[in-house]
Amino acid sequence: MSMSLDGYVAGPNQSEDAPLGVGAEGLHEWIFATSAGQKFIGGSGGTEGLDSRLVTEGFQNIGATIMGRNMFGPVRGSWDSAPEWRGWWGDTPPFHHPVFVLTHHARPPLEIADTTFHFVTEGLDSALERARDAAGERDIRVGGGASVVRALLARKVIDNAHLAVVPALLGAGERVFADGVGAEGYDVRMEPGDGAVTHYFLDRR
Amino acid sequence: MSMSLDGYVAGPNQSEDAPLGVGAEGLHEWIFATSAGQKFIGGSGGTEGLDSRLVTEGFQNIGATIMGRNMFGPVRGSWDSAPEWRGWWGDTPPFHHPVFVLTHHARPPLEIADTTFHFVTEGLDSALERARDAAGERDIRVGGGASVVRALLARKVIDNAHLAVVPALLGAGERVFADGVGAEGYDVRMEPGDGAVTHYFLDRR
Repeated sequence: MSMSLDGYVAGPNQSEDAPLGVGAEGLHEWIFATSAGQKFIGGSGGTEGLDSRLVTEGFQNIGATIMGRNMFGPVRGSWDSAPEWRGWWGDTPPFHHPVFVLTHHARPPLEIADTTFHFVTEGLDSALERARDAAGERDIRVGGGASVVRALLARKVIDNAHLAVVPALLGAGERVFADGVGAEGYDVRMEPGDGAVTHYFLDRR
Repeated sequence: MSMSLDGYVAGPNQSEDAPLGVGAEGLHEWIFATSAGQKFIGGSGGTEGLDSRLVTEGFQNIGATIMGRNMFGPVRGSWDSAPEWRGWWGDTPPFHHPVFVLTHHARPPLEIADTTFHFVTEGLDSALERARDAAGERDIRVGGGASVVRALLARKVIDNAHLAVVPALLGAGERVFADGVGAEGYDVRMEPGDGAVTHYFLDRR
């Protein structure tokens, strides 16, 4: 995840026009400056180096993704209010594996190309169990958002986390770190990025 | 100020045994690894480079310091409970200029060597005014703690701030950044430190 210096991974007031919340567009700029990020959106060029390698590695050997409902889309409440919403990712979502979306509102699985979105209403443990079954030997990636990562860090079920700290202040939004989250049980490593971003790695002890 | 990756500049439960709060001793380790930090405590050796230069610059051209009462000492409530408390710094405090301590409890000025501690009960504006008078052409340093820096950043009276982010998680404590603090009106620059610490500079626009 990308995090601002003041600790926010998303801005306030997420919407279809501002998927990451107001003022948070800049958090992901570093990704699109890399060669891997450019390839991801069908472009070319971009930097090679650690930043690019980390973007690539984030997609390698992943057998399932877990994400919060706010990351799947801006729809709030029942899906009936926007039955046409199929995620942010168009006709070829970049996952290519099952995605488990945490939500309080049931919805049938949604298959788009080789990605199936499953809507899990039975909570985090159920999503983890289904993701483990789907991933087999491969890894589970937690896509976000902040509240899902926060909950999983607090339970110490996350093995490795990567946070890219961006030299910017958002002033408001969603935090990954709250009192009591992640302090015990994780080692922290730092590696300078190629540009303005600094990478931090949390490894479970 | 030194800040953990999860945004804390001090741990919880500050006391005489744990001036920075529980678990926060490591936040200042980078300072004592530098040549400037070693000189400061009468030692020798230590790294030269950006880290050391920043430690030195933090003490240059300062004509007054403002600090919160918790930074002056672990005494809470009336000073009568511990009239012998004279700060953390022994017989030769490193300030060599007037220090304005924000407190709700009046106390006569305390002169130790060439540093005088003034106890300001009339609030932040009064402390700022007195510090400006004392500093003249020189700068005012805000020593901390978190709540004083947060209040001054929110008012945008701080011209320049330096935050050294330490790759560690505290899990609890005092934050400098809260919703609404510092987002507008500051540019942020990053410079990698010599060791594990990354330096961030906030410059008022």
